[in-house]
Amino acid sequence: MLDTEAADAQARTNAAELKSRIGAADPDTLALLFTEARTHYGWRDKPVKREQLKALYDIAKMGPTSMNQQPMRLVFVESQEAKTKLAPALMEPNRPKMMSAPVTAIVAYDSEFYEKMPEVYPLNPNARDMYANNPEMAAANAVRNGTLQGAYFIIAARAIGLDTGPMSGFDNAKVDELFFAGTSHKSNFLCNLGYADESKIFRRMPRLKFEDVATFI
Amino acid sequence: MLDTEAADAQARTNAAELKSRIGAADPDTLALLFTEARTHYGWRDKPVKREQLKALYDIAKMGPTSMNQQPMRLVFVESQEAKTKLAPALMEPNRPKMMSAPVTAIVAYDSEFYEKMPEVYPLNPNARDMYANNPEMAAANAVRNGTLQGAYFIIAARAIGLDTGPMSGFDNAKVDELFFAGTSHKSNFLCNLGYADESKIFRRMPRLKFEDVATFI
Repeated sequence: MLDTEAADAQARTNAAELKSRIGAADPDTLALLFTEARTHYGWRDKPVKREQLKALYDIAKMGPTSMNQQPMRLVFVESQEAKTKLAPALMEPNRPKMMSAPVTAIVAYDSEFYEKMPEVYPLNPNARDMYANNPEMAAANAVRNGTLQGAYFIIAARAIGLDTGPMSGFDNAKVDELFFAGTSHKSNFLCNLGYADESKIFRRMPRLKFEDVATFI
Repeated sequence: MLDTEAADAQARTNAAELKSRIGAADPDTLALLFTEARTHYGWRDKPVKREQLKALYDIAKMGPTSMNQQPMRLVFVESQEAKTKLAPALMEPNRPKMMSAPVTAIVAYDSEFYEKMPEVYPLNPNARDMYANNPEMAAANAVRNGTLQGAYFIIAARAIGLDTGPMSGFDNAKVDELFFAGTSHKSNFLCNLGYADESKIFRRMPRLKFEDVATFI
């Protein structure tokens, strides 16, 4: 009990210290992560190291999920053999984007993420059963939280200086059959990673205005 | 034609310039956005200005969505009246977290987001019908891309110095009935926003290891 109380106290000190030290992100970093970042379609012949992908994950994993579920699972498609296996599941225009990328992540989620709840959420010993006994709630949570983590993954990749090309133009059922048969994993989206050939990008498409999407009540 | 070619050329120059100017995010910013950031449960009595919420959106809106769909819709619950209306839809332990927050966002998505495709994706005049004629695909896209945008929303809030408390412990159908009846909008999750009372946070729960979630093929 004293150990967990001490851990809570330390967490509170850390959180207060963080906010007093760093008020907000600077405009250059926001440009890198959001405002000037682009989705990329062509790739330079420069490899991505496995250490970079681990560093990326170690940032993304800290993003919040409901009850710390962390349903995201990742398959990094690096080899020519695995890419050739993946290609037929993609819409034709997406195949060269994937084939030319140094690595393509299959961002997936574990529909039985709840089996890890005793490990990731020891605060509530009933957490596993709460989801295991309610398949509809479990499925919604796997998709919601797996997708939140997918977004953290994209932003974290940009944060370590990688260019990203997320894609959902593919046959999810076919990818699941090819890569996840006999498991509880399901594909969500693909994300090409590497160093972009900027000559392949297009002008930006317009964003919806605040007034068009938001209301105050 | 020349105008769009010039726009493409400018976008390519901007993208190349960005990457040569900023290599990666610094550790302090990563701490603010991901590695040291926490989910908050208690709030100080310090208001959030509507201008801050617009600034937040103007960052988050730049995150990528499939074919620029941008299905996320936002309701910012500020008034005591609206909070009292929302409260019964929340699991009991989440009510005081929401009631004490300066503002709670209902992060929602428009299941008929495709009606805006002619505006947001003028490159493909068939984009609207592609989704409108395939309700299953449209629904999956609304959830996936609306949730990606929800994650961008959380990270962008942290980036402008707000503390966040995302929550999914509530009755989505009830929120939809109370706030979105007769519309195509559906609730996804809630996000309290403000300046945290750090004394209310808990020790961090463990994150899954890279080796436990990722494979290379």
